[in-house]
Amino acid sequence: MNPLKAAQDAAIAAAREARARYRDGLLAPSAGVAPGMTQANLIALPRDWAYDFLLYAQRNPQACPVLDVTDAGSYATPLAEGADLRTDLPLYRVWRDGVLAEEVADGRAAWAEHADLVTFLIGCSFTFETGLLEAGIEIRHITDGCNVPMYRTNRACRPAGRLHGEMVVSMRPIPAERVAEAATITARYPAVHGAPVHIGEPARLGIADLARPDFGDAVRVEPGEIPVFWGCGVTPQAAVMASKVPFAITHAPGHMFITDVPDRTYHV
Amino acid sequence: MNPLKAAQDAAIAAAREARARYRDGLLAPSAGVAPGMTQANLIALPRDWAYDFLLYAQRNPQACPVLDVTDAGSYATPLAEGADLRTDLPLYRVWRDGVLAEEVADGRAAWAEHADLVTFLIGCSFTFETGLLEAGIEIRHITDGCNVPMYRTNRACRPAGRLHGEMVVSMRPIPAERVAEAATITARYPAVHGAPVHIGEPARLGIADLARPDFGDAVRVEPGEIPVFWGCGVTPQAAVMASKVPFAITHAPGHMFITDVPDRTYHV
Repeated sequence: MNPLKAAQDAAIAAAREARARYRDGLLAPSAGVAPGMTQANLIALPRDWAYDFLLYAQRNPQACPVLDVTDAGSYATPLAEGADLRTDLPLYRVWRDGVLAEEVADGRAAWAEHADLVTFLIGCSFTFETGLLEAGIEIRHITDGCNVPMYRTNRACRPAGRLHGEMVVSMRPIPAERVAEAATITARYPAVHGAPVHIGEPARLGIADLARPDFGDAVRVEPGEIPVFWGCGVTPQAAVMASKVPFAITHAPGHMFITDVPDRTYHV
Repeated sequence: MNPLKAAQDAAIAAAREARARYRDGLLAPSAGVAPGMTQANLIALPRDWAYDFLLYAQRNPQACPVLDVTDAGSYATPLAEGADLRTDLPLYRVWRDGVLAEEVADGRAAWAEHADLVTFLIGCSFTFETGLLEAGIEIRHITDGCNVPMYRTNRACRPAGRLHGEMVVSMRPIPAERVAEAATITARYPAVHGAPVHIGEPARLGIADLARPDFGDAVRVEPGEIPVFWGCGVTPQAAVMASKVPFAITHAPGHMFITDVPDRTYHV
């Protein structure tokens, strides 16, 4: 068997095994799991809200790049044959009237509340981290074994129908001499947030203190490093809160859906 | 005044002047007009069909890359300040029950039939032709002063709700030694169809005779040239026909909406 085919088969097997373990109850962030396989943010909404959300995503593609949308009532996706979106993520959040109501490891009871849920899978910046690592650019939150820091910003997304809210960003500290490379590498992954939305000057995004992220974990910013900000797939959760959406299910930040699609698929 | 700013102002002025002339009744294809400014395909549908169409576009991004979507009942777009989508294209098609009912130069009467039309602007491969020309790759239909040839194919798009249909492609003959470059240049414009969907072997796409395109004009294919196929924004019109959509307004093939957005904006 050729070594490339063997590596691909091993990567898909790792993705399937991870989904099976989450299905069986494993509760852990997905960063670094099944390396090289695309991870996705998830949001499920009643069919009545699906158009507003799809339009919101279209109008804010750096924050909400759509990888797949299920039919109403379906929890299957061609991005991972045989996966069940209700059970195969490590942790879900259930939202009621824009407020986080509960976190659950098994989404089936929540899915059963609405027969017509449409599930959106949104690109995740973990996908382009493979490209950054291959270029020898350190990813601090991987080095330190924690979740990526995420921040709410003062940047309003373009509204759509009943949906409005601010953009959420993820942050990676990058040495000043590698920032241009980090921008150009990630720009070639537009389906998973693409180029940075902001480089340096966190105060201009309304971020008062990098050490206090709104989601995920704080990371060290060393002397000579610039905080670089990318659109983040937690942005839909900010819209759910700001718009008081009656019902939604999302992944818990950092607890993503692992697909069978290699990261390089989204490189243009 | 710096020369770059002067050139940009001149390009936007050319786009505005073209839209004003179409509004005043000029009936002519838009290829080569306002060079360097992005042109867009148009389809307007009643609000009841908007979700199915937006999902169809999301599931078939190489054929239907969405650049903008209006609110229901609106005919304005941020892609061209002050433009009126009902009048500022050279020629429209009105579709009833999936059949082409009429072509009109002024869309206002058609728009008045439904108060809740949602208008989609879809990327056009004319946008990446600037990049090909700058690389010294000849665009045959520009050389010959005709419309690009477009073909229906045997490739089914992924359906969405009530919408289904085949992919339509545009074709440019490219010298064999430049095909790789044409593929890599256009791949960096994913918002305007991106990389080719097929290179050579038209029969495999179900195209029996390159000299008989389904839309636009036939072009010469010289010895040593390979027919290269890209997704085409006429694909929505094929879906309107195949799915017998009750009512739709589209641009007439080759008679596009000229925006105020420079082509390079869509380069990643």
